[in-house]
Amino acid sequence: MNLVDAKLDEMRSAARAARARYRGGLVEPTAGVAPGATQANMISLPRDWAYDFLLYAQRNPKSCPVLDVTDAGSRSTVLAEGADVARDIPLYRIWRDGKLAEEVTDAGAAFEEAGDLVSFLIGCSFTFETPLQEAGIEVRHIADGSNVPMYLTNRACRPAGRLTGQLVVSMRPIPAARVADAATITGRFPAVHGSPVHVGDPASLGIRDLARPDFGDAVRIEPGEIPVFWACGVTPQAAVMASRVPFAVTHAPGHMFVTDVPDAAYHV
Amino acid sequence: MNLVDAKLDEMRSAARAARARYRGGLVEPTAGVAPGATQANMISLPRDWAYDFLLYAQRNPKSCPVLDVTDAGSRSTVLAEGADVARDIPLYRIWRDGKLAEEVTDAGAAFEEAGDLVSFLIGCSFTFETPLQEAGIEVRHIADGSNVPMYLTNRACRPAGRLTGQLVVSMRPIPAARVADAATITGRFPAVHGSPVHVGDPASLGIRDLARPDFGDAVRIEPGEIPVFWACGVTPQAAVMASRVPFAVTHAPGHMFVTDVPDAAYHV
Repeated sequence: MNLVDAKLDEMRSAARAARARYRGGLVEPTAGVAPGATQANMISLPRDWAYDFLLYAQRNPKSCPVLDVTDAGSRSTVLAEGADVARDIPLYRIWRDGKLAEEVTDAGAAFEEAGDLVSFLIGCSFTFETPLQEAGIEVRHIADGSNVPMYLTNRACRPAGRLTGQLVVSMRPIPAARVADAATITGRFPAVHGSPVHVGDPASLGIRDLARPDFGDAVRIEPGEIPVFWACGVTPQAAVMASRVPFAVTHAPGHMFVTDVPDAAYHV
Repeated sequence: MNLVDAKLDEMRSAARAARARYRGGLVEPTAGVAPGATQANMISLPRDWAYDFLLYAQRNPKSCPVLDVTDAGSRSTVLAEGADVARDIPLYRIWRDGKLAEEVTDAGAAFEEAGDLVSFLIGCSFTFETPLQEAGIEVRHIADGSNVPMYLTNRACRPAGRLTGQLVVSMRPIPAARVADAATITGRFPAVHGSPVHVGDPASLGIRDLARPDFGDAVRIEPGEIPVFWACGVTPQAAVMASRVPFAVTHAPGHMFVTDVPDAAYHV
């Protein structure tokens, strides 16, 4: 076996092993798990809501880039052979009428309760953080061992059927001289949020205080760094809340679905 | 007004004027009409089939890149202000039970018959043919004033719900020394079919005779030229036929929907 194949094999083994651990009950954030394997956000909705959501994703592709959609009632995905999307994520959130009802390590019962859930696996910016670091651009929340800061903006997503909501963005402080590089590098990964939606000027996004994110942790901003904003995979959860979707299952923030697909597959 | 704005204004005026002519009853192929304005394939399906189709498109993004989806029963699109998708295409096809029933210049009656049609506007390779020509790569069917040759392949699309079908490809002969350039240039336009799905070796796609395309016209292949295949927007029509969709409206091949969106908007 050549070196590249060996590396891919090792990556897939690590991804499989991680899913097995989570199926066994382990709870941990997935950042840094199975390096090189794409991680995905998940949102599962009753069949009756699936069209509205798929249309919402089509109309808001930067925040909701769809990597795969399961058949109604199925827990299989082409992104990971043998995986069970109802059990292989370390931590799930169950939503009722748009409100967080509980967090569970196994969503099997929730999937059985609904019967016809359709699961959407959505690109995650973890995929482009490795290329940023490889280009010598520090990713602050990784360097500091915290979660990426996320903010609810004043930008309405384009509605679809019964679904409405605001755009959620993640923020990474980037040295002014590297902002263009960060835009170029992440732009090569449109399936995982792509290029920034906004550079600088948080006030015009309706963000009053960068030190108080709506989700995740605040991060240091050093002198000479510009806050750069990317569309965020938490946007679908914001739509579930804003639209009072009767029932939904999602991953818990930072606890993603680890796929077998190499990050490189989403490089254009 | 600066030169770029003036050019965009002229393009939009030409697009509006073309749609007005087609609404008035003019029938003509749209190749070369309103240069710089993106043209789109259209397929309109009953609301009950919309989810299956949107999922089919998500699962087969190279052949079915969705640019916009109308609300059920609506004839408006964000791609062209004031346009009526049921009247502003020069020629429509009406499909019943997967069979071509008739061609009409005004689909208003068909839209009223169904009541809840959802229209999908799908990227068209016309958008990347201008950049190919600008790079000095002859686009044979344009040079010869014919329609692009299209072939039904032996490659099954990934099914979605009740929809199945084979991949349809368009073919352009490219000099061997320019194949890489053609792949790179078209790869920059993923929303309009993107890079080739296949280069050379038509037999392995199940194409027996390049001189006998399933749709469009055959074109000359000069010595030293390689047949290069791109996913084609006729793929959805093949799915309508193969899946015996009870009712559908589409554009007639070569008679596209002329939008107000500049081609450059789909350059990544």
